[in-house]
Amino acid sequence: MKEIESLWGEVRELSLGISGAVERLDSPPTPLQFLRGFVSPNKPCLISNATLHWTALSSWSDDSYLTRALSSAHVSVHLTPDGKADALVPEDSSSSSSLCFASAHVLRMPFPEALKLIVNSDSGKYVAYAQQQNDCFRSEYSALAPDCDAHIPWATEAFGCLPEAVNLWIGNHRSETSFHKDHYENLYAVVSGEKHFLLLPPTDVHRMYIRDYPAARYSYSQDTGDLTLEPEKPSRHVPWCSVNPCPSPEDKHSEMSKFPLYFNGPRPFECTVKAGEILYLPSMWFHHVRQSPDAGGRTIAINYWYDMQFDVKYAYFNFLQAVHYRSIHPKLLETAAGESDLNTD
Amino acid sequence: MKEIESLWGEVRELSLGISGAVERLDSPPTPLQFLRGFVSPNKPCLISNATLHWTALSSWSDDSYLTRALSSAHVSVHLTPDGKADALVPEDSSSSSSLCFASAHVLRMPFPEALKLIVNSDSGKYVAYAQQQNDCFRSEYSALAPDCDAHIPWATEAFGCLPEAVNLWIGNHRSETSFHKDHYENLYAVVSGEKHFLLLPPTDVHRMYIRDYPAARYSYSQDTGDLTLEPEKPSRHVPWCSVNPCPSPEDKHSEMSKFPLYFNGPRPFECTVKAGEILYLPSMWFHHVRQSPDAGGRTIAINYWYDMQFDVKYAYFNFLQAVHYRSIHPKLLETAAGESDLNTD
Repeated sequence: MKEIESLWGEVRELSLGISGAVERLDSPPTPLQFLRGFVSPNKPCLISNATLHWTALSSWSDDSYLTRALSSAHVSVHLTPDGKADALVPEDSSSSSSLCFASAHVLRMPFPEALKLIVNSDSGKYVAYAQQQNDCFRSEYSALAPDCDAHIPWATEAFGCLPEAVNLWIGNHRSETSFHKDHYENLYAVVSGEKHFLLLPPTDVHRMYIRDYPAARYSYSQDTGDLTLEPEKPSRHVPWCSVNPCPSPEDKHSEMSKFPLYFNGPRPFECTVKAGEILYLPSMWFHHVRQSPDAGGRTIAINYWYDMQFDVKYAYFNFLQAVHYRSIHPKLLETAAGESDLNTD
Repeated sequence: MKEIESLWGEVRELSLGISGAVERLDSPPTPLQFLRGFVSPNKPCLISNATLHWTALSSWSDDSYLTRALSSAHVSVHLTPDGKADALVPEDSSSSSSLCFASAHVLRMPFPEALKLIVNSDSGKYVAYAQQQNDCFRSEYSALAPDCDAHIPWATEAFGCLPEAVNLWIGNHRSETSFHKDHYENLYAVVSGEKHFLLLPPTDVHRMYIRDYPAARYSYSQDTGDLTLEPEKPSRHVPWCSVNPCPSPEDKHSEMSKFPLYFNGPRPFECTVKAGEILYLPSMWFHHVRQSPDAGGRTIAINYWYDMQFDVKYAYFNFLQAVHYRSIHPKLLETAAGESDLNTD
């Protein structure tokens, strides 16, 4: 449907820019600048010198500081064979099998043990990633609260409310998050190491080939140390983005032919968020995240989720999806031909 | 196309409200409240106690004050037979003739004379309306500048710029503005009398039945005092809203059957703006305006046009129009069937 492809181009020409670069600010914006220039137009930005006053920036690169501060904390760690939690993987080990949506095995353990698992993931049968997204920074990790801000002041003033959830993420070079979107405004602050984002605006939803996949979960055997993938029971389906933006060289050709709208359309916005920087990741934007670790082998970040406004942009997003759905189900078009006075205009 | 009708409902349920009432604020919002609650979601509001400090509120109801202050000013006055400038009227006097888009005859004259014409319009062959929208308040009417604000401070801070144009409007009970939209953010302050607005959001564009009409202009004969309608030469066409929301009782049935999407769809937002109040009329909203005069027979208002942002909302608006255009030109659908990979999803 060529109107949809025109929309991808127009939102870039009008507002987001056609370079594929995320706009960079040298210092935090005022609440008004942030609201006017980025939140209202649903446009990302990358803010330098955003957290200069956080002691976390120096202290968290030191393992012994973290293990001391969190010596009595129990935290949740996500185990997967390859660092990819909440991702599409073959239902069984044969590569030709159909895909399922695989969740990690979640283990709770003392923080010092969790940090060791994450940093030494290369040597084991699994990759560990602390990525519990349940406001964990204000619960499991509350001992670290003094080291950074409880909220982002200029964002809080712009949104008119405190964050709904604050999450801590500790990963390593293998941790990866597949393309998805959140119904939150997101301020993503990197504390140590680097995060690499690929971003697509909500207008580009059809380039993600969102389809329903059967849900499965990794199960960890303490005896063997093995992770096995098991279908969820009762079974359920999860709508998820089909596109892997970084296929292996041998898969690249087939991925490109399966998902031409992604690979042939406008390139995703790309940005690397370094320690001390904050990415504003607008609500409903699709994002894929990889990371580069610091000298200690970890990437640490905090993200602040603020409630989004469900306004005319959200209504238009639903309209875009409904129109496309009808365009690929032409029978709907025929039966609807006489139903609406709109056809008379 | 039922997806478009769903959009009308959803934007009301999510954001604008389903009551058809415009949200009222008891005092001016802060710039952040205004940007977050109204500009970003493209939602109107009516602000009481907005201009308490303007001396215009008392002095402009006095004809002798105005004529003294503007004794040497020359101003533009729009003459029409019925108070409806920039409106659709029959091309000739037979009521069955096809419609054209009629502009007023514009006369420049000393202000004291203009005010008399406006107030005494009932007795003549035409209705006069001072409604020159060329930043006239800062040029023709600059002698009145001390009586009110040069801009609306909380709006200027929210938009991050000064108004692009400030216009003064002096009409009487017959002055009426037909449905149209502007590509500006609009702050509309009534100083004397009342203005009655009907408002429809940009999502409802297809309920306006915008069509091309041949342009014509009233021509005034100083000898006879008559206004005659003449086609513009060279001829041109103007896209304009076909709907008259207030048809005469005898025309009502035929208007309702010609424009069912307007008359059968959600009711327009209605609001009366009184002296001392400001209406925020968001960019791209369709508006129809009538007025009630003060004791002196005039309605006076100032409006501030601020530049709008052409962002994702504007891109979605264009998408909405393109999709509808294709839905009523099914041949486009057929020829496009194989053209886009979007059909494969």
